[in-house]
Amino acid sequence: MSLAQEMFAVAPAKGKANLSSGQLKLLAGKARWIYRVSEAGFPTVPSIAITRAAWEALQNQRMKRDNRLRVHWVSCLFRLVGADGQAPQLVVRTSAPVHNGGLMPARTGIPAPVSEGDSVDPSRPLGRAIKEAFESYGYERGPWHGQRSSDDRARQIVLVQANIDDELAEFLTRDPASGALGPAATGRAPLPQLPDECSDLVALLDAKAGRHMNCLVTLERGGVRFLSARPIQASVGAELEAAVERANAGVWTRQNAVNRIDPGSLGQILHPRLSSAETALPIATGLGVSPGAASGVVVFSAEDAARTRARGKHCILVVNETGPADIEGMKAATGILTARGGMTSHAGVIARITGKPCVAGVRNLTVNAVELSCRIGDKDVRTGDPVTIDGTDGSVYLGMLPLSQPNIGGALGTVLGWSDASRTIAVRTNVETVESAQTALNFGAEGIGLARSEHMFFSTERMVALRRMILSEDETDRARALEGLVDFQSGDYADLFSTMQGRPVTVRLFDPPLHEFLPRTDEDIDDTAASLGLAVRALRQRLERIAEVNPMLGHRGVRLAITYPEVLQMQIQALMAGARTASEKLGRTIPVEIMVPFVSTASEVAWVRERVMAIAQSSGLLRSQQASLSFGTMIELPRACLRAGEIAHMVDFFSFGTNDLTQTTFGISRDDAPTFLASYQRKGIYERDPFVSIDQKGVGEMITMAIARGRESNPGLKIGICGEHAGDPESLAYFSRLGVDYVSCSPYRVPIARLTLAQASA
Amino acid sequence: MSLAQEMFAVAPAKGKANLSSGQLKLLAGKARWIYRVSEAGFPTVPSIAITRAAWEALQNQRMKRDNRLRVHWVSCLFRLVGADGQAPQLVVRTSAPVHNGGLMPARTGIPAPVSEGDSVDPSRPLGRAIKEAFESYGYERGPWHGQRSSDDRARQIVLVQANIDDELAEFLTRDPASGALGPAATGRAPLPQLPDECSDLVALLDAKAGRHMNCLVTLERGGVRFLSARPIQASVGAELEAAVERANAGVWTRQNAVNRIDPGSLGQILHPRLSSAETALPIATGLGVSPGAASGVVVFSAEDAARTRARGKHCILVVNETGPADIEGMKAATGILTARGGMTSHAGVIARITGKPCVAGVRNLTVNAVELSCRIGDKDVRTGDPVTIDGTDGSVYLGMLPLSQPNIGGALGTVLGWSDASRTIAVRTNVETVESAQTALNFGAEGIGLARSEHMFFSTERMVALRRMILSEDETDRARALEGLVDFQSGDYADLFSTMQGRPVTVRLFDPPLHEFLPRTDEDIDDTAASLGLAVRALRQRLERIAEVNPMLGHRGVRLAITYPEVLQMQIQALMAGARTASEKLGRTIPVEIMVPFVSTASEVAWVRERVMAIAQSSGLLRSQQASLSFGTMIELPRACLRAGEIAHMVDFFSFGTNDLTQTTFGISRDDAPTFLASYQRKGIYERDPFVSIDQKGVGEMITMAIARGRESNPGLKIGICGEHAGDPESLAYFSRLGVDYVSCSPYRVPIARLTLAQASA
Repeated sequence: MSLAQEMFAVAPAKGKANLSSGQLKLLAGKARWIYRVSEAGFPTVPSIAITRAAWEALQNQRMKRDNRLRVHWVSCLFRLVGADGQAPQLVVRTSAPVHNGGLMPARTGIPAPVSEGDSVDPSRPLGRAIKEAFESYGYERGPWHGQRSSDDRARQIVLVQANIDDELAEFLTRDPASGALGPAATGRAPLPQLPDECSDLVALLDAKAGRHMNCLVTLERGGVRFLSARPIQASVGAELEAAVERANAGVWTRQNAVNRIDPGSLGQILHPRLSSAETALPIATGLGVSPGAASGVVVFSAEDAARTRARGKHCILVVNETGPADIEGMKAATGILTARGGMTSHAGVIARITGKPCVAGVRNLTVNAVELSCRIGDKDVRTGDPVTIDGTDGSVYLGMLPLSQPNIGGALGTVLGWSDASRTIAVRTNVETVESAQTALNFGAEGIGLARSEHMFFSTERMVALRRMILSEDETDRARALEGLVDFQSGDYADLFSTMQGRPVTVRLFDPPLHEFLPRTDEDIDDTAASLGLAVRALRQRLERIAEVNPMLGHRGVRLAITYPEVLQMQIQALMAGARTASEKLGRTIPVEIMVPFVSTASEVAWVRERVMAIAQSSGLLRSQQASLSFGTMIELPRACLRAGEIAHMVDFFSFGTNDLTQTTFGISRDDAPTFLASYQRKGIYERDPFVSIDQKGVGEMITMAIARGRESNPGLKIGICGEHAGDPESLAYFSRLGVDYVSCSPYRVPIARLTLAQASA
Repeated sequence: MSLAQEMFAVAPAKGKANLSSGQLKLLAGKARWIYRVSEAGFPTVPSIAITRAAWEALQNQRMKRDNRLRVHWVSCLFRLVGADGQAPQLVVRTSAPVHNGGLMPARTGIPAPVSEGDSVDPSRPLGRAIKEAFESYGYERGPWHGQRSSDDRARQIVLVQANIDDELAEFLTRDPASGALGPAATGRAPLPQLPDECSDLVALLDAKAGRHMNCLVTLERGGVRFLSARPIQASVGAELEAAVERANAGVWTRQNAVNRIDPGSLGQILHPRLSSAETALPIATGLGVSPGAASGVVVFSAEDAARTRARGKHCILVVNETGPADIEGMKAATGILTARGGMTSHAGVIARITGKPCVAGVRNLTVNAVELSCRIGDKDVRTGDPVTIDGTDGSVYLGMLPLSQPNIGGALGTVLGWSDASRTIAVRTNVETVESAQTALNFGAEGIGLARSEHMFFSTERMVALRRMILSEDETDRARALEGLVDFQSGDYADLFSTMQGRPVTVRLFDPPLHEFLPRTDEDIDDTAASLGLAVRALRQRLERIAEVNPMLGHRGVRLAITYPEVLQMQIQALMAGARTASEKLGRTIPVEIMVPFVSTASEVAWVRERVMAIAQSSGLLRSQQASLSFGTMIELPRACLRAGEIAHMVDFFSFGTNDLTQTTFGISRDDAPTFLASYQRKGIYERDPFVSIDQKGVGEMITMAIARGRESNPGLKIGICGEHAGDPESLAYFSRLGVDYVSCSPYRVPIARLTLAQASA
């Protein structure tokens, strides 16, 4: 395309624009809407466009007294002249594909050039405005985008419009909160009186743009003329309503509607959120480890939390870090705020399980539990003071900030329903309680992909039984402790299977990170000693003996099953008993899936498989078809990925635990990462947090290798993903390309996964 | 080969044996020596052999009254009849390739069969003895060796010898302690009077067997007749002396001498060891984390250790676990015994660095530091009681057991010298002090492959400076702390470079596992607070803030360099200053190799490289050729292996840290592994401890992949191994097949590596 063609009328005063395909490609930002509205026949303010490349060439020729391009430019300017033949006053405005703050605001009231020379002279009003408009684009060049960014820069355009000195009116195409079709007020001013044609314009622009738009028109004597438009941010609820409306109106297909929703934005409406975060300033920031916002009065103990809750008041439990003794308090509290810990800390894990917002690892929070006060940043906060936390971004605010409650309205349900039509990968959920399972089913979960059996012990009574087991010194001791556990477990499994109504349930064998389940504070140790009938000193000695230097890499997962086979046996028996009860209740086969965690060798899998199969067979449930059994492994260690071929022979499925796989592949403890992660992101070492979005180049290669080796040796192998990445849209899109059969995420992320996978499959 | 051929004369009474190649292959154990001595012309007791397959076939035919094989057997028995034509009395003995306790002892005085039927009848003396001999072999079948073991079993042989009723004499071919050529006493009885021919037999057998042999002869009226021989275990010192003697005598080539020494056995003479471990019973067993044995009186504190040492007495420091405060005590003690911790615990690391024997993780040791007593197993032990520990196998004994001191005599030096002729892979050492470097040079180290810079701070004075740095709250604080460190470091590096006399020195950037460097006990915290001028409460708060859940996967290695660039800068400046001093002293170029630890992304390497190069360039040392600079990374995380191609572009060398790579590939904390490792080995889950011998199928594939990817993108890439596996013979043989350029191990293992790699290269 010649540079002469890079100056052209987007909406000429007379006739049609008749753009070439090259010119159509140049239509970015406002230029695009002006062109499309004008083409659709709606009266539009005459507008021309010029690219930076053309403008710079014009200037070069001007210096050399070469007038060839100027001829084209002048002819272009003439296309702004209307039927009256009068040279109009002009407006110059930028037209960026993405709006940003530094761009020059529209420059109005520019006199038409008085001569051809005047039309390109940067010391004259028109030339100066164009020059300054281009300059306002700035010039960003990332280290990897040199060439591309330079091309993009040459294609930047500036608009020149005929400035009709009429009344201006601004409105939105849709209500940004509800999504209802406008004209709607912008929020800065009430909606002006508008002629009926504006409704046509709104419908036209909404269909063409498929986005919420801010629209500027002139109200002439003769009627409405379209001047400019730019997209605006609407709430995800509004986007959903609009998408459903467009699909129902036939403007979009249903798949279009599914594709146009940003799955990441759904998080906003699946949890309570701050209504006015823009205006409040956080007093401290930590890690958002369990999403959603919560307001309440500060309490420092489980007892105070329970008391406050009993009085019908919301409270936020504030502690240095939580431990098993705090579970009742965490359940009573509306939100949790801790000074220490990260995403996989006790607080984070329990908060996500119980669905409570939680901010952890607030480094400038100091708790004085004795004086019932704490210091957050530079503020002193006492029991009963109101605070608000946002577990999505880790902010902590003083006072009770207004919250918006989650709204899983009709439009979300409709879009998710449509999404299931194109989705080919199943979405399961990571839950272990009936309550969470019910939430997940409501969100459309198709099964349980990860039931962490040790999480069934998060209650005071059961914790005693569990601690007795962990702290037992020999097999007799342990056998006694196990007796107390088997009944709990059978009942839990029966309830879970019944709730899931025959959908698959994958139970992960016991994998307690010991340090999370043991008493830590003096008080807790005293209580535990009493409940176990042990001397405090004896308990302390046992605790010291089993303390681990690196619990993440310690005596856990399959290692427990092999060193304490009686624990494995108890668990399989409880599972089978639970399946029996559920099968009798539902009158159908219960699909039990047993999963071995933290495997690094095929020999571990063989050892456990042999025992699991023996117990399952001897239960008689498989023969009577009351239960079906599927046996699989978590793949969450690099060595398991390498040996996947050998392991796959012995299993029905792999489920990738991407959290631990990321920890071991990178050699990073997620709990300890906050000390350097911020610095790493600031210095550009990491493009993104590998615990949020899967590291495709490293962890991704591990997974890819394991899938290939696993499927090669066992073509029927089923592949799932059950780490937290299974709720992250970018990671989900990646997993869908690896050919996985299902993903499993927390209940609140099930809708995100359904939508993302529908987009990826389309 | 027909079964008839599987009964044959090994040493016939008359004539030659004339064995077929198939029969030669059947000669295992004693049969082999009898045949070879007889073939060499030395008078030998007539002997025949029969395989289990032949014997069982004989028995089958006997049941069916089929005499075909019996004809061969009888003809075979006739070969025992001497010139006098008398049927001799017979001896039946097993002839196993590997001696074991369950084998039938020689059955003597068996009358010759009176008929052909009698010769195969298992109810008659000869047949019964043969049957019982075969039965005593037992029948072991491992899960993976079914077929092979069944073949081996069929080939087992039993010997029948003519029992000359003369005097027997037993002696050794060499002295088992000194290796001097015999005849030598067996240790059970004084050496009998022997005719001169015995010396010929000794020389003959020593040359044929190339091992220390126990030899049985008959002393007839006519002279000496060889009866039987079996190999015996000799000390490695004796093996070395014998090997040198055989090579000097031309019986072996020098390469033969090198190949015939078991490198693993060298460990016995490179550390003090128990002289009488066979007779003493350990009172407890832990993990041998630093090899060698030590005796001394028990002390419970650094002060007592220093006092005892000052009185010229050896002492063993007994503590729950060691921390930085114990370093002076550890230096004063002769050995260290701890209740907690594993191979990479503070105690283990410091003990290996200082060369002290250490037993750690003794689970049934309880220390009462207040009452100055401890309980080991079921014994109460008090200050001043004598104990002996063996850091090689983890045993703890009551009393002062006699020790043998290391003897790096002439024969070891000779064999190692020969080994260097065929070795193609360089052997470096992991040291950071001048003293250890000198030891390693004496053992033949060709450079330093791993100088752990943080280990240079293991002294009270420097520890204060280091703690100040770690505990600093901001950059100003840290900068002040660093000033105190730079002088120490420059001097240390200068000394190290000077000691190494221009050999390459690889310095690993600062990689302190924080928990090892910080105070833990109340007393230590009080002292540290005082030395840092901090309130105890403030120090405790800082300690809590930087405490890590999983320090192995925490804020360490390259992560420290990136978050605290001032630490990196200090270190490179100190290195350059040290190189300058050493270069001026030695008048030569100092080859400085800088290595970045714990890398997981190429971006980390790029970031550090840019800064290191800038400081090195600005020092002027490279221009003046006072120093040369090589830049590399540790490869010790799975992700670094995966991204090796990208990383290799930016570095001159990779050095594999196999300890951490094993920890992350398996997801096992070495410190915490003892709780399940024993169970894993007992249950056959692991064939061997992956921290002792490299896991070829998992970690090995990681290393192989990294080398391939690294060399593909940088063909000049140098590859080293610096984990503890670099001192393990089996691992070294594996590494040599991967094409590494050098290995680096602790000083005491340098001879083992030199020998193993010479064998592998041959």
